[in-house]
Amino acid sequence: MIQQPALEYLAHGQVPFFRLPSVPRPAPLPDGTDAVLLGATWDGGATAAPGARFAPFHVRRVSAFVQGFHPVHRVAVFDRTGAVDGGNVAFPPFDPAAVRGRIEAEVAAIAQAGAAPFLVGGDHSVALPALRAVARAHGPVAVLHLDAHLDTSGPELWGEPFHHGTPLRHALDEGLVLPGQLHQVGIRGAWGSPEDAAPGEARGARITTADALGAAGAAAVAARIREAVGDRPVYVTFDVDAVDPAFAPGTGTPVPGGLTSREALALLRGLAGVRLVGMDVVEVCPALDHADLTSHLAAHLLFEGLALRALRPGEGRGARP
Amino acid sequence: MIQQPALEYLAHGQVPFFRLPSVPRPAPLPDGTDAVLLGATWDGGATAAPGARFAPFHVRRVSAFVQGFHPVHRVAVFDRTGAVDGGNVAFPPFDPAAVRGRIEAEVAAIAQAGAAPFLVGGDHSVALPALRAVARAHGPVAVLHLDAHLDTSGPELWGEPFHHGTPLRHALDEGLVLPGQLHQVGIRGAWGSPEDAAPGEARGARITTADALGAAGAAAVAARIREAVGDRPVYVTFDVDAVDPAFAPGTGTPVPGGLTSREALALLRGLAGVRLVGMDVVEVCPALDHADLTSHLAAHLLFEGLALRALRPGEGRGARP
Amino acid sequence: MIQQPALEYLAHGQVPFFRLPSVPRPAPLPDGTDAVLLGATWDGGATAAPGARFAPFHVRRVSAFVQGFHPVHRVAVFDRTGAVDGGNVAFPPFDPAAVRGRIEAEVAAIAQAGAAPFLVGGDHSVALPALRAVARAHGPVAVLHLDAHLDTSGPELWGEPFHHGTPLRHALDEGLVLPGQLHQVGIRGAWGSPEDAAPGEARGARITTADALGAAGAAAVAARIREAVGDRPVYVTFDVDAVDPAFAPGTGTPVPGGLTSREALALLRGLAGVRLVGMDVVEVCPALDHADLTSHLAAHLLFEGLALRALRPGEGRGARP
Amino acid sequence: MIQQPALEYLAHGQVPFFRLPSVPRPAPLPDGTDAVLLGATWDGGATAAPGARFAPFHVRRVSAFVQGFHPVHRVAVFDRTGAVDGGNVAFPPFDPAAVRGRIEAEVAAIAQAGAAPFLVGGDHSVALPALRAVARAHGPVAVLHLDAHLDTSGPELWGEPFHHGTPLRHALDEGLVLPGQLHQVGIRGAWGSPEDAAPGEARGARITTADALGAAGAAAVAARIREAVGDRPVYVTFDVDAVDPAFAPGTGTPVPGGLTSREALALLRGLAGVRLVGMDVVEVCPALDHADLTSHLAAHLLFEGLALRALRPGEGRGARP
Amino acid sequence: MIQQPALEYLAHGQVPFFRLPSVPRPAPLPDGTDAVLLGATWDGGATAAPGARFAPFHVRRVSAFVQGFHPVHRVAVFDRTGAVDGGNVAFPPFDPAAVRGRIEAEVAAIAQAGAAPFLVGGDHSVALPALRAVARAHGPVAVLHLDAHLDTSGPELWGEPFHHGTPLRHALDEGLVLPGQLHQVGIRGAWGSPEDAAPGEARGARITTADALGAAGAAAVAARIREAVGDRPVYVTFDVDAVDPAFAPGTGTPVPGGLTSREALALLRGLAGVRLVGMDVVEVCPALDHADLTSHLAAHLLFEGLALRALRPGEGRGARP
Amino acid sequence: MIQQPALEYLAHGQVPFFRLPSVPRPAPLPDGTDAVLLGATWDGGATAAPGARFAPFHVRRVSAFVQGFHPVHRVAVFDRTGAVDGGNVAFPPFDPAAVRGRIEAEVAAIAQAGAAPFLVGGDHSVALPALRAVARAHGPVAVLHLDAHLDTSGPELWGEPFHHGTPLRHALDEGLVLPGQLHQVGIRGAWGSPEDAAPGEARGARITTADALGAAGAAAVAARIREAVGDRPVYVTFDVDAVDPAFAPGTGTPVPGGLTSREALALLRGLAGVRLVGMDVVEVCPALDHADLTSHLAAHLLFEGLALRALRPGEGRGARP
Repeated sequence: MIQQPALEYLAHGQVPFFRLPSVPRPAPLPDGTDAVLLGATWDGGATAAPGARFAPFHVRRVSAFVQGFHPVHRVAVFDRTGAVDGGNVAFPPFDPAAVRGRIEAEVAAIAQAGAAPFLVGGDHSVALPALRAVARAHGPVAVLHLDAHLDTSGPELWGEPFHHGTPLRHALDEGLVLPGQLHQVGIRGAWGSPEDAAPGEARGARITTADALGAAGAAAVAARIREAVGDRPVYVTFDVDAVDPAFAPGTGTPVPGGLTSREALALLRGLAGVRLVGMDVVEVCPALDHADLTSHLAAHLLFEGLALRALRPGEGRGARP
Repeated sequence: MIQQPALEYLAHGQVPFFRLPSVPRPAPLPDGTDAVLLGATWDGGATAAPGARFAPFHVRRVSAFVQGFHPVHRVAVFDRTGAVDGGNVAFPPFDPAAVRGRIEAEVAAIAQAGAAPFLVGGDHSVALPALRAVARAHGPVAVLHLDAHLDTSGPELWGEPFHHGTPLRHALDEGLVLPGQLHQVGIRGAWGSPEDAAPGEARGARITTADALGAAGAAAVAARIREAVGDRPVYVTFDVDAVDPAFAPGTGTPVPGGLTSREALALLRGLAGVRLVGMDVVEVCPALDHADLTSHLAAHLLFEGLALRALRPGEGRGARP
Repeated sequence: MIQQPALEYLAHGQVPFFRLPSVPRPAPLPDGTDAVLLGATWDGGATAAPGARFAPFHVRRVSAFVQGFHPVHRVAVFDRTGAVDGGNVAFPPFDPAAVRGRIEAEVAAIAQAGAAPFLVGGDHSVALPALRAVARAHGPVAVLHLDAHLDTSGPELWGEPFHHGTPLRHALDEGLVLPGQLHQVGIRGAWGSPEDAAPGEARGARITTADALGAAGAAAVAARIREAVGDRPVYVTFDVDAVDPAFAPGTGTPVPGGLTSREALALLRGLAGVRLVGMDVVEVCPALDHADLTSHLAAHLLFEGLALRALRPGEGRGARP
Repeated sequence: MIQQPALEYLAHGQVPFFRLPSVPRPAPLPDGTDAVLLGATWDGGATAAPGARFAPFHVRRVSAFVQGFHPVHRVAVFDRTGAVDGGNVAFPPFDPAAVRGRIEAEVAAIAQAGAAPFLVGGDHSVALPALRAVARAHGPVAVLHLDAHLDTSGPELWGEPFHHGTPLRHALDEGLVLPGQLHQVGIRGAWGSPEDAAPGEARGARITTADALGAAGAAAVAARIREAVGDRPVYVTFDVDAVDPAFAPGTGTPVPGGLTSREALALLRGLAGVRLVGMDVVEVCPALDHADLTSHLAAHLLFEGLALRALRPGEGRGARP
Repeated sequence: MIQQPALEYLAHGQVPFFRLPSVPRPAPLPDGTDAVLLGATWDGGATAAPGARFAPFHVRRVSAFVQGFHPVHRVAVFDRTGAVDGGNVAFPPFDPAAVRGRIEAEVAAIAQAGAAPFLVGGDHSVALPALRAVARAHGPVAVLHLDAHLDTSGPELWGEPFHHGTPLRHALDEGLVLPGQLHQVGIRGAWGSPEDAAPGEARGARITTADALGAAGAAAVAARIREAVGDRPVYVTFDVDAVDPAFAPGTGTPVPGGLTSREALALLRGLAGVRLVGMDVVEVCPALDHADLTSHLAAHLLFEGLALRALRPGEGRGARP
Repeated sequence: MIQQPALEYLAHGQVPFFRLPSVPRPAPLPDGTDAVLLGATWDGGATAAPGARFAPFHVRRVSAFVQGFHPVHRVAVFDRTGAVDGGNVAFPPFDPAAVRGRIEAEVAAIAQAGAAPFLVGGDHSVALPALRAVARAHGPVAVLHLDAHLDTSGPELWGEPFHHGTPLRHALDEGLVLPGQLHQVGIRGAWGSPEDAAPGEARGARITTADALGAAGAAAVAARIREAVGDRPVYVTFDVDAVDPAFAPGTGTPVPGGLTSREALALLRGLAGVRLVGMDVVEVCPALDHADLTSHLAAHLLFEGLALRALRPGEGRGARP
């Protein structure tokens, strides 16, 4: 049993993700580690309400209430993944380029060791270095992108190429995403212009709006994605604002009309069998949360991602150097 | 482009609805104005928790985050409607009759100028003067009434004919609603007696409970209403408590079991093609809100209404004087 | 009319459940009393966040806004049930065994008088003495158990047999539940081990996960349960965390992915015709609530339960002594 | 012992002020009743944030935690005053004149029975009918007015003579206050014009600003007032915004720079020996409160007032009819 | 009368600071303008909790409740200063150097026009460009610095010279502060090392801790400062965390043991007669606020600053170009 | 340097008290450890609002913002004390006697090793086992007890000898307190009867009410206590409700009229030179807190206690076995 029993966890006082062993970088990963949780306390890329920098502390705290056995997949998630808490990425907090560099380095080290990184943001701009790192280890990947927003903006709106509205744009531009394998789910709300979707469409991004998901059902959407990605390596980047603010009030750019938490969890659960090589959950903003709802949700989303990995552990073995 | 670009809006410091031009009454409307947003800071009609008087300030603030292009209807909403922020209706706050008079006068001036009024309450009692004004310009209208409550009470319960539980009763009694064209959606919860629905039923009101909407789907309900109203002028009066308090906690008489925000938005979106002559969003109570959720929702509901107008701009031209 | 009119209730200043007559125990029940609401201010059985001890005060306060006529069942709920507020169970708050004893005694007195007890917790551990009392009056019962959790743990995890994770385990062990008649709805989240469901499965418990309910629809699930229980006496134990924390944030062990409030209410409504002999609503934690959302929901859940009783009043008559 | 013991109170479930006997009007007062607590759920006089209508419910709830013996005055407050909870004043909530009439009638009945009324607002406009009633029984009185605001406005600002900024103006104009006996404490913040204080000054009102109280100390200010009022009948009208919003955040027109709660309590305590004939605590707005701080404070302020009465019980005996 | 009357303000719907005329830059200042309020929506300099970027919107909203006459100084503040709302400084939000540049340019334009700038942050890093601009117009100034922290850090801690812990360090290093004229008030809490105060001490900074102010009284401290600054130009930089978090919870780096709001206001009031050439109020973080307490306080602090200017209007006339 | 530098702490992700080394029991204390912070997650002794069980998690999180040098005492607190985070006491959470036993054992192990325990509750009942442990190591001690309540109740009120209102009663009865050396500061509010203070008075307890402290000043009270305790071993038990709920809203039994945070900190600071052998800070209830105010205060109170120890390190050396 990897997860600390409850009494021992209480005795420890501090809270690693899911009561897992704490292996702050740069300590070497223990043998058998197939998944590493990592915090990224950066919110300098927020265009609206900041505060996601504190998410890793709160998600850790409430993740202690999540147990280890997945009753649908019938798998002991932490045992099978040998998951550990890798601490937070250390970076100089006023140097955005260095932040990206350090995140990329840490995630790359994990991915190249054959384990799957699970990054807890921070704002969505942290997904870009994570994707760069994963693509370094695995080559271009299929990306499941859950979000209210397209996140394929360019620098024109705010005069800056790297903020939380642009990670997917760079990922596409840099060839980190396999052609036709950007799956965007949860999209909704108003756009700036009809051209907003153009950068994605040009690379074959497939948009499933929140409405479309509601109409088709999360299971059907998951099946469609599962079929589309086949055995390609998959990275999931989950902006918590894909979920409706009723379920995830603690986020900086809320858009009504989103997924229910049940749909979000079901979507991930429906991906059983895919080859998950990494995941992030971003844009959790504790200062705007109530009763830790959004942190609880983030913990469960991570658990679903870890369960996918548990169903196909060792997917990173043989990742190209 | 009607909406201020983000940097300029930030520079202004104050926030008109949707970053639109600010044309506080009684300044004349600019040429081409086809929609006017108007605040109504009155909550003296509340029977339970008051506070909706402050809604226009908060809805304005968060509406700045809504952009202008509607990706489903494929229309540049603010460009097509030439929408402006008409300010709040000015009234002496301790004289309910004068409040109604001033709201009616302001809304009438807009409607008679051929533009569509979009009123942001305030409590639901402000819908009565708005309906009177709209009917003055267009004759009796079809009304889509979203609410948890019937709002067809008489004076018997609280000894007063004009409060937030009575606007539809007066609208029916005064002939402001076309026969058989009161569509009430979202109704639920307990009633005082079996007779509660009688005033509406006597005039052919059609009730779609929240449960019924959930079963049929918002799109089907919208289609039914669209067909029923045909080309008649339509007024939408949206009590935010039609939506479940999980999605709209900031309201004074919450009733569990309501619409999801996705259903609410889809319902409005499904009305594409109707001849919308006016709309209100009422009962947003900021003091009971969390993280501006309800204000964000209200802004998006207004945007959907504006989009309907954008699809058929100029619907008020030729309104009878 | 049993319920006080609004003005008189306002004049009273204090708030009995649903503005009903206040008959604190041990006063004898008035003639014709067929349902008794009872508070149980105990949260000493909480393993995570405590605070449910204060729920009865807040549920009483907001229940004043619920009126008496059920528009779906077409029944005047309080008139038909002659419902009263029986006050809270008095107990020495640091003696868990005495707490259980007093709750059992109070509930038994009501059940044996032929009325249906409606217990407002408190944490879920109060359901055990309530079930013991009901089974004393009616023999073993069918149990509808709404919850995110199975609540069939043994003493192994926390070294204590009686806490809020164990009431159903004891109920099964003590033969309070009719064979094959434990219906568990809303179950979700991670488990400690694959064996978690074993205690229930051994006695034929039927689990409907939150996902399954979402797929089948609340009405279909209700129909299935209604058919399964037939004319057996039914007890409903409703842990408010069966409902998603978006709708019920005020609870101590929230799990995302739960029922919507609409589903929860529809499920109870769909049981029309069953022989309800008692109900509890537990785990409402006001300190974690926002804008009284969870208390409002609890009041409406109780109203649905009372309505079931109103459809078949007098079901306890002839209960065995 | 008048106050219910804790266990019995818990068993009752509902909460009269301070766990006192509940004697909702128009039931006759029990023999020996020398103080009556009364709720006034009116906030239609608020010029800024409304919501004080709900204060009596919350102050009752938390007042249960206040015990009965005053350790400074060494007096068993509830025993000596035979205090009861008289319920809330019943009134038609949309008829301001009737509201004033009913409050005046209820308070007058208490005062004329020789007991001291303790009114829990509601907004400050409820103080006018209370003062009218007290003056009816006792003739003009000395008034201790705690407030951030002067409350001597006329109708010019909002076009209405009776709102929460005017009660003292009317009280002076109607001769309810003894000449030179309006003591205003806690005044601060900006004024509309240099003339704001004129109405009070013309009648010899003595202003002690919050700063002045801080400099002199609450005890010295109390001594000065005690000496000034001598054996005249004293009425205390306590707008909770006299206290700084840090200590009393739940109020509609907060002004920083106010009294500490320690000063406020000490001021009342320092009045030991005065002939208190009535008191109100107003402008507690629960929707803006946090963790019931303001309600707790209101309960303690009332307790201090009751203690003053307990030190000189029976002060109303012989009140003129 | 400069300030809009209440009804007209309500009618406008949007809220300029103190209901003043809105003159967003670069519109020329109206004749007679002697004070300009300006928002600076930048919080990229926060080392702990961000969010101060939204302060100008909230301070504007609640400042509408502040009237225009100062009853202690007996001056009509807005009439005498001809104050206007200059909007927010527009800047590209991801370019810290440009942010500083734009703030400096805007403040300089005001100062050089002979008016006093009143800047509403944003985090404390915005004080540096403001001080640069003021010193450009007036030469080095005396600085009254209210803060819990010294804000004289260098780049060593976070690897960045310009963040919210360094503005005074740069101001000293750049010679913006007159020798011996840095007055730091409210300092408290733990330091990193005994050297923390060295940069200030080297230039004769005078520290008055929160404790020292409490012991001496705000009036005495103000007198000491007033005497020290004599007729030198004075700039006040007010980090709201100088005030205790009980009074100002909405701030990113709260330190218990601070000033009361009464002390803070009295300190500013005690400076009557000084030659105030500019002021900022920074570090108000609305997402962490409750019931707008901190925004209300900020509005009153600004009002006190404006009142100082009103007592000596035209102080900037003849500022060197 | 004992405390982790900020970047490294950020990188670790989890938060030991004050970023100190984490030495969860039963690991042996590192050489030179003179102070051990310990969490006690027990709130089963609460008579009103529970929830203090989660305090150690939140106090740890915000304590990261407290630096190491005390600018008044001029001492590097963590360096001099070699302080470590000893984790939480592990105990079976439904067995109150075992909880007390485990706390006593853990604290005793620390005290007998010559280090000073700093216990973070939990409710106030955890102070009894801590005092027992300290007295075992040092013999009876002088006790500084900060609280709104006397905490010398017997079992009569709630039928239980060990709850959060009784720890001082037992400490006196068991001879853990030196005669005449119980110093109770902050006492206020109503009592149950004149006899409430009798148990303490019988042993010479000296009460300083919150009012008395306000009148005398915290420094004078500290001096008086310092003189009274002389060189005796001193234990500080700090119920955070000694501080006014404005400064410490997150607590279960708030009483208005308490200490300011400045007074509380000054009182501890004024004890410089005493021989501190242990301390607890209890009754911090995060669910009732706002913006972590109470947790921040608790962290600073602990820091002041640690600073006292730093001024006389090694005070426990030679403690009797």
